[in-house]
Amino acid sequence: MSFSTLPTVAFIGTGVMGRSMAGHLLTAGYRLRVHNRTRVKASDLLDAGATWFESASEAAAEADVVITMLGFPQDVESSYLGAQGILARARPGTLHLDMTTSSPALAKRIASAAQQREQIALDAPVSGGDIGAKEARLVIMVGGEKAGFDRAQPLLQLMGKNIAHLGPAGSGQFCKMANQIAVAVGMLAWCEALAFARKAGLDPLAVHGSISGGAAGSWSLTQLAPRALAGNFAPGFYVKHIIKDMRIALESAAELQLELPGLAQAKQLYEQVAQRGWEDCGTQALYRLYTSL
Amino acid sequence: MSFSTLPTVAFIGTGVMGRSMAGHLLTAGYRLRVHNRTRVKASDLLDAGATWFESASEAAAEADVVITMLGFPQDVESSYLGAQGILARARPGTLHLDMTTSSPALAKRIASAAQQREQIALDAPVSGGDIGAKEARLVIMVGGEKAGFDRAQPLLQLMGKNIAHLGPAGSGQFCKMANQIAVAVGMLAWCEALAFARKAGLDPLAVHGSISGGAAGSWSLTQLAPRALAGNFAPGFYVKHIIKDMRIALESAAELQLELPGLAQAKQLYEQVAQRGWEDCGTQALYRLYTSL
Repeated sequence: MSFSTLPTVAFIGTGVMGRSMAGHLLTAGYRLRVHNRTRVKASDLLDAGATWFESASEAAAEADVVITMLGFPQDVESSYLGAQGILARARPGTLHLDMTTSSPALAKRIASAAQQREQIALDAPVSGGDIGAKEARLVIMVGGEKAGFDRAQPLLQLMGKNIAHLGPAGSGQFCKMANQIAVAVGMLAWCEALAFARKAGLDPLAVHGSISGGAAGSWSLTQLAPRALAGNFAPGFYVKHIIKDMRIALESAAELQLELPGLAQAKQLYEQVAQRGWEDCGTQALYRLYTSL
Repeated sequence: MSFSTLPTVAFIGTGVMGRSMAGHLLTAGYRLRVHNRTRVKASDLLDAGATWFESASEAAAEADVVITMLGFPQDVESSYLGAQGILARARPGTLHLDMTTSSPALAKRIASAAQQREQIALDAPVSGGDIGAKEARLVIMVGGEKAGFDRAQPLLQLMGKNIAHLGPAGSGQFCKMANQIAVAVGMLAWCEALAFARKAGLDPLAVHGSISGGAAGSWSLTQLAPRALAGNFAPGFYVKHIIKDMRIALESAAELQLELPGLAQAKQLYEQVAQRGWEDCGTQALYRLYTSL
């Protein structure tokens, strides 16, 4: 494989997931330009040959492809759309992939702003968590121009397994929101079931053994409920992040004039979880709320 | 195997599930006394050697074990507790297994009334549906005296695979209610997710392909959502039955002074489904409500 045939990639946001994802690109031979708010979190990548830049827009300036994996929509907005932002500094023809879980409306604005500069911006949020990122088997949900999706494919295949182009700009974020809606409302399902069993004097773990293999079964009942029952509220996925996602989803639903009563209920309950001081716990802390009401 | 070593079983309620369950006992060599509201639904069993009785209490009168698989709690109540009911006619020492999904409070009343007559009554509701019944791999959730559970084991093992004793009388029903709570609230999770995706202009089936294998995954997303997306609302489990179960669960929760906001929301939505005239549809008709709001 010759370096000269591979595009240069700027990778912005080298937190737990971004670091693993960028690492796969480096291993495959891509030249990597990296930036992160905290430099130390990029040190493994720098040791492995990536080049450090002091800002996102400097990293993006001479890249062929820019990948961002940030925290919140406001980080995405300022990184891309600021006067000295990524789009302002990137060259015409640059392909942008925002893999942050962010807002569909913002994804559309970025795609439109990119187009005005003869650049292409895709939204490409993921699911699968730390482990999915590490093992390069993320689900990647892509929205934006088909030509951009085709160009992105070789990179996406180094990071994920189930890669789908869902439609125009924003569609990847809409799909990720659908995922988060099912995740959030699904937490109520088993939390209410096991809180009920416990209150009735049953052993919730025995009930789990009876109900998890059938029609009541879910990924979270299998994976998260046993942690909650063991009093383990360490974060797989943070309470504060599911609240962020529910907020985006409910705003999007309101724009679409769609009522989501289950999601509205879930958000209200998770806000109570946060008010108890558990926003840095894992999402299974919802069970703790039910058993302390 | 000698007939004389096996107890005589009265099986009351030979609908779709009861028929399969009773059939397994007959095949194993048990003498079966059967009754059903509609005699024709027992004809396969009668052809195979079961004896017909004109009422539940006549069938129960000379049985060692009585198994009931009925429709609604009021059927269970009148069958067991009526002046000419099962308990009044059964002999001391008779073991009763109510396998209907019914109310925990009623199960406790029946167990107590049985005890006064030196009989033992267990609640032993099941999950797994028609196919689980046919293939003898039901989940069976048992409440009541441990001695009764031990006596029932050989029979239960002919009908199910995952058989658990959850605690005293009512515990089987409490566990089944926990199952139904997770089932009902879990339906909101994927219905809201896919209704949102559809409203956003995405292909819900493509979204299903992206989200069903990960943290949003559930039995019902995998099994029921594709039917709903294909416009197939034929019943696996009836809307009218999930409403019955949610009513029992919410009554039980109120008695336990536990609030279940997700379940209350689910019940309200399913009542709207029924008001649309879809109470004889499968539970996936909830998706139809979301897409018609």
